[in-house]
Amino acid sequence: MVILGLDPGYATIGYGVIEKTERGLFAIDYGVITTPAHETIAVRLAMIDEAMTAIMQKFKPECVAIEELFFNTNITTGIKVAHARGVMILNAVKECGRLYEYTPLQIKQALTGNGRATKHQMEYMVKMALRLSAPPKPDDAADALAAAICHANMMGVTRREIK
Amino acid sequence: MVILGLDPGYATIGYGVIEKTERGLFAIDYGVITTPAHETIAVRLAMIDEAMTAIMQKFKPECVAIEELFFNTNITTGIKVAHARGVMILNAVKECGRLYEYTPLQIKQALTGNGRATKHQMEYMVKMALRLSAPPKPDDAADALAAAICHANMMGVTRREIK
Repeated sequence: MVILGLDPGYATIGYGVIEKTERGLFAIDYGVITTPAHETIAVRLAMIDEAMTAIMQKFKPECVAIEELFFNTNITTGIKVAHARGVMILNAVKECGRLYEYTPLQIKQALTGNGRATKHQMEYMVKMALRLSAPPKPDDAADALAAAICHANMMGVTRREIK
Repeated sequence: MVILGLDPGYATIGYGVIEKTERGLFAIDYGVITTPAHETIAVRLAMIDEAMTAIMQKFKPECVAIEELFFNTNITTGIKVAHARGVMILNAVKECGRLYEYTPLQIKQALTGNGRATKHQMEYMVKMALRLSAPPKPDDAADALAAAICHANMMGVTRREIK
């Protein structure tokens, strides 16, 4: 089963594609979608949509796991990220149909057994789970892989459809 | 020139289509898109996208004017509205290409000359501007018409492309 993990963003969006097999989890591809700061929000949303379509059509994931959005102090950035996340959800539902969202705490818990795991611990566990020779970079791609691994681990245990 | 005004929302989205001619402004159509509370966010965003496509293809607006988003105290609702607004912007840029955003203050200012106009004053001015026999209902549709009228009045004065 192919799972796409997404780390929502506006300037930088992480994606990670993994396969869950009887022999364990394997990384198929990971990376980031970026949008240039000088473009309008309309153009940047269209770029995100286009890049998402390319990823969905290339890897045909059966499930999409997306990190839940929490607003920190910067509401202006938060609104833009939420705009982008709306576009990502729309794209995923059109191309795939099965979406699941996880909080950062759930993802940390699923990977390390500790909801307050450090960035370093998370990187280590992503590397281990996927048997990579080094922690995946950039960070947004690693976060996206972590969301996908979380979903792979949670399947059969609990399944939280996005709402 | 046909202008589509949009009042962003998640459960209820207002839309208003007007035509700007040498003889003044005319209402072509207005109403609301609604999404049922029992559906997932993915399904609701897909419904908004579908309804938006139908409106864009039916009326083929040359410009889209959309109200800017401000977060009040309810961040959870705000995130959902921002998800929906991202989908609306994406749809509009795909189908039309010219988007403009206005703050509630700018819209009130453009319609009444007073950025702090009451809801009643705004309803009255929308009715007058479009020569309607009664204020348009529901409120979200009236707000969307107000955004469209604002854009019609601002054109040639100032033009603020969405960013």
